[in-house]
Amino acid sequence: MCADYKVTAWEVSGTIDYEKLIKEFGTSHLTKDLKERLRLKTKSKKLHPFFKRNFIYSHRDFDKVLENIDNNNFYVYTGRGPSGEMHLGHLISFLTSKWLQDEFGCNVYIMISDDEKFSVKKNLTLEQIDKQSDKDIEEIAAIGFDPDKTFIFKDTEYIKHLYKFALQFAKKTNLSNAKAIFGFTNETNLGHMFYPNIQNAPTAFERNKFCLIPAGIDQDPYWRIQRDVAEKLGFKKVTAIHNKLLPPLQGMDGKMSSSDNKTAIYLTDTPELVKSKVNKYAFSGGRPTLEEHRKLGGVPEIDVAYNWLYILLEEDDIKIKEIYNKYKSGDMTSGEIKKILIEKLNIFLENHKQNKVKNKKLIERYKYTGKLAKEMWKL
Amino acid sequence: MCADYKVTAWEVSGTIDYEKLIKEFGTSHLTKDLKERLRLKTKSKKLHPFFKRNFIYSHRDFDKVLENIDNNNFYVYTGRGPSGEMHLGHLISFLTSKWLQDEFGCNVYIMISDDEKFSVKKNLTLEQIDKQSDKDIEEIAAIGFDPDKTFIFKDTEYIKHLYKFALQFAKKTNLSNAKAIFGFTNETNLGHMFYPNIQNAPTAFERNKFCLIPAGIDQDPYWRIQRDVAEKLGFKKVTAIHNKLLPPLQGMDGKMSSSDNKTAIYLTDTPELVKSKVNKYAFSGGRPTLEEHRKLGGVPEIDVAYNWLYILLEEDDIKIKEIYNKYKSGDMTSGEIKKILIEKLNIFLENHKQNKVKNKKLIERYKYTGKLAKEMWKL
Repeated sequence: MCADYKVTAWEVSGTIDYEKLIKEFGTSHLTKDLKERLRLKTKSKKLHPFFKRNFIYSHRDFDKVLENIDNNNFYVYTGRGPSGEMHLGHLISFLTSKWLQDEFGCNVYIMISDDEKFSVKKNLTLEQIDKQSDKDIEEIAAIGFDPDKTFIFKDTEYIKHLYKFALQFAKKTNLSNAKAIFGFTNETNLGHMFYPNIQNAPTAFERNKFCLIPAGIDQDPYWRIQRDVAEKLGFKKVTAIHNKLLPPLQGMDGKMSSSDNKTAIYLTDTPELVKSKVNKYAFSGGRPTLEEHRKLGGVPEIDVAYNWLYILLEEDDIKIKEIYNKYKSGDMTSGEIKKILIEKLNIFLENHKQNKVKNKKLIERYKYTGKLAKEMWKL
Repeated sequence: MCADYKVTAWEVSGTIDYEKLIKEFGTSHLTKDLKERLRLKTKSKKLHPFFKRNFIYSHRDFDKVLENIDNNNFYVYTGRGPSGEMHLGHLISFLTSKWLQDEFGCNVYIMISDDEKFSVKKNLTLEQIDKQSDKDIEEIAAIGFDPDKTFIFKDTEYIKHLYKFALQFAKKTNLSNAKAIFGFTNETNLGHMFYPNIQNAPTAFERNKFCLIPAGIDQDPYWRIQRDVAEKLGFKKVTAIHNKLLPPLQGMDGKMSSSDNKTAIYLTDTPELVKSKVNKYAFSGGRPTLEEHRKLGGVPEIDVAYNWLYILLEEDDIKIKEIYNKYKSGDMTSGEIKKILIEKLNIFLENHKQNKVKNKKLIERYKYTGKLAKEMWKL
């Protein structure tokens, strides 16, 4: 019944059947019960909308983390591959991490995988990647992580500390397994092939705690080797919470692309560009004519404006329900819901830009001088 | 006509046809003419016996180095994989490097490939490898390199400086090429597969000079990728001089083994052990009975005692010729030539052990505080 789809660690395309992915990857549903247990352990006694609205919908061993989560039993590990400008979709795991840090006071480790992107992107030099890394770190700093509990590191700079862990994972992974999991071919280069071991290294940073990875469900295969070998190496298996993917402007299929700037809203887009992109490209669940729309109503489920509001931009449950009802009944037109999205997007981006300027001074602490960063450089 | 042999970067066995290897690997003969040109450029105006006696017999682009060798146009790069105790055979490239440094004042870079050995040796931990690395560095320090022109580094410690170069080589090497050159299979682990890129990194240390690698001819395949891609990356192709392999005690075939201690004399062997190993295991070119030996004479060409004296322990051309003649004529018995070898070996090892104690204080300079080491850590 569902269209073709393809989800590997490298590529996402087609319509994604999220239920099928849970089965295929062997992950578990993040059930209502688990979410309620999570809520009760939070400081605020409130769930983030990502959880409430089932955008974060799957997990691995998060139930184990929950058992003792109020005892600071986990740290968060996430990252960014600095190959092009960051868009809204890239913020999801950072926003999730920030919420977890606010609620539980956990450490957050953020890998800037410059080595990976250099290996994978044919035409980019190390110098170009490094410039992009610095830009990305500014965007990430805008999120406002705790500068004493957050460590941001570039792989090529922090490699001495990653390499020994990476070698241990690498020793347990033969070519045959790596090919099966990552789809490596005879054309894959050796840097690309080694990178998954580097990516695994931070899962061994705090051995007595759970490493929790908030990531798109498409990233799950990346961690299979870690889970297969971690315990043999004396580390804990990674745990994860998985989000669905923020749909691209063009419709509910696939994932935003860094390389196709029509599909996404970038963190640096101007208000005018946001307006024009949304009006021009955002896939509408509205009807061909106003008359039909008033009569039949829109289809919010396939409307990108509605989905972006629901996932990311309208946290108020009453307001989002109102929008849903009005759009579905035909009271609200496609132009009107797009207008709401444009306003919300521009407020979000304006805030983000202001935070970026304000938090520039924190970057030194995230990288080198904050409490956690200092400890990590001493390791 | 020649027996089966196998020479890859990983394994040497059987009788080695050194002429065939030159053809197979596509290297060049180190001709008399080249050697005479080398001699004329040395400070001492003397060739090391390795050259004179054609033990170093093949090269890559050494003629290019020679063109301008008196202008300090090259540096030496060699190394050691710290997986077990060092034996005599392991010293060859260090002795060659030391001679080049004495004659030309060149920098010498010595890689301790702890990462490689950890990846390749199934049962060794990083801690075990690290202990072996420290032992090996003591043995290497005994050679007496110039502490301001020599840099000894462990890969896992110096990785930050190696990694960026390694990534560049890795990006130019796909799995297919790597399999063809190194014989990687589906069982090879990812650390083992990435290591050749790390090994290539020091060939980019001094971009305006030739990197000269003195190594056993069996190591040549290791460098094929470097030569294929270096110029595309803006580095020079490595140059090399190749020695034959110091034969194991058991006979002229194959190579000493770190894992089979009957095949080799270790740098830590006691005089008694040296005596017993030589008498018990050194393959003799002598005849079955004394009578036959006196009548027919010995065969120095296949006699391990003679070969070790010729290659490593009797530098005096007149004396070695005398031994050859006496042994060949039957004047000298197998027991007598073994006695000479035992004496020479024990003097050599006693000197080495004394130098090891004496030079311990230099290790800090080789690794961190010498002029070259300091520069390399600043890179």
